[in-house]
Amino acid sequence: MIGKKTPNLIVRADVNISSSRNLKLGRDVSINHSVFLLCEGGLEIGDFVSIAHNTSIITTEHSYSDPDTPIKFQPIQRLPVVIGSNIWIGSRVTILAGVRIANGTVVAAGAVVTRSIDVENTIVGGVPARHIKMRF
Amino acid sequence: MIGKKTPNLIVRADVNISSSRNLKLGRDVSINHSVFLLCEGGLEIGDFVSIAHNTSIITTEHSYSDPDTPIKFQPIQRLPVVIGSNIWIGSRVTILAGVRIANGTVVAAGAVVTRSIDVENTIVGGVPARHIKMRF
Amino acid sequence: MIGKKTPNLIVRADVNISSSRNLKLGRDVSINHSVFLLCEGGLEIGDFVSIAHNTSIITTEHSYSDPDTPIKFQPIQRLPVVIGSNIWIGSRVTILAGVRIANGTVVAAGAVVTRSIDVENTIVGGVPARHIKMRF
Repeated sequence: MIGKKTPNLIVRADVNISSSRNLKLGRDVSINHSVFLLCEGGLEIGDFVSIAHNTSIITTEHSYSDPDTPIKFQPIQRLPVVIGSNIWIGSRVTILAGVRIANGTVVAAGAVVTRSIDVENTIVGGVPARHIKMRF
Repeated sequence: MIGKKTPNLIVRADVNISSSRNLKLGRDVSINHSVFLLCEGGLEIGDFVSIAHNTSIITTEHSYSDPDTPIKFQPIQRLPVVIGSNIWIGSRVTILAGVRIANGTVVAAGAVVTRSIDVENTIVGGVPARHIKMRF
Repeated sequence: MIGKKTPNLIVRADVNISSSRNLKLGRDVSINHSVFLLCEGGLEIGDFVSIAHNTSIITTEHSYSDPDTPIKFQPIQRLPVVIGSNIWIGSRVTILAGVRIANGTVVAAGAVVTRSIDVENTIVGGVPARHIKMRF
């Protein structure tokens, strides 16, 4: 995960990375305090990405459609998350399994991103995250 | 709190439980990283419940109706929280004092649950949490 | 930061304060577990203020308007935050750079405060935070 291909990587204190073998990182990535990267389902982060403190990225989801089995014993789905390049993810953001985020996106603090952001260079925010405006 | 009546309890790192004598747990409960359970007002969790990382459950509330006393010196109300069975509480959820959650509920990541969920087997999410759909 | 002018200060575990030289605190301030105070841009907190666990106050913002420079290399703006007196900030709240909060405000758990709260003695909540009701 960390090597010649990840120059200028910054990882602050209390960062939690699970299944890091499924994490692919670009260059100039910053991961701030208390970020959770749950990489079981696969997580790819491009170049020049800043992830602010207390943000979580989740790559798995419980199934819950079987009424006769406790949810916690139903299968886990692995849904990779792909974060493009030149992206700023604000503080306390949650990005759910299966989401793709286009290059140049700003994700406002506190957003819960439940669907992919397909258009480049936008600002998104809210719960669930919606388009707020273009970046320029 | 932990004993013969709580088989298969899983508690991950950095979990914060206050007033644990007021916590009643069922079987097969999972409490993930950095969960806060503030049990001063009483917290009951049923069987087969998963609580994902960074979720908080709060069981007290400040009074604030007296204009002449600083809020922080006004009385604390104890309002128990009751979590049923077969429930999945997603990451970074906040459950407020006095809330009851019906059996079979899925609480989506990032939700703030301010009112009881009375109907079983629903999915709720958002701030404040609202009904999204039935589970099946 | 801490001295004769900050009587009855309470700071719980896992609190993260950066650039604390830019933090000005009043009396009877409580800062609970896992609160982040990022004071680079200046943070002023009045008297009788309670900040519940897992809340973040942010005082800087990235610029992102230059399409030709990676966001992470664009200038940081310093935007001071001013929290008045007799204020209760709930759990898991995010207060963004440049916000001022009027005396007597209650900020509901999970709120993301993106704009100043100018009217005293109100309750605000949601993402983004909006007026819910008057306190009394």
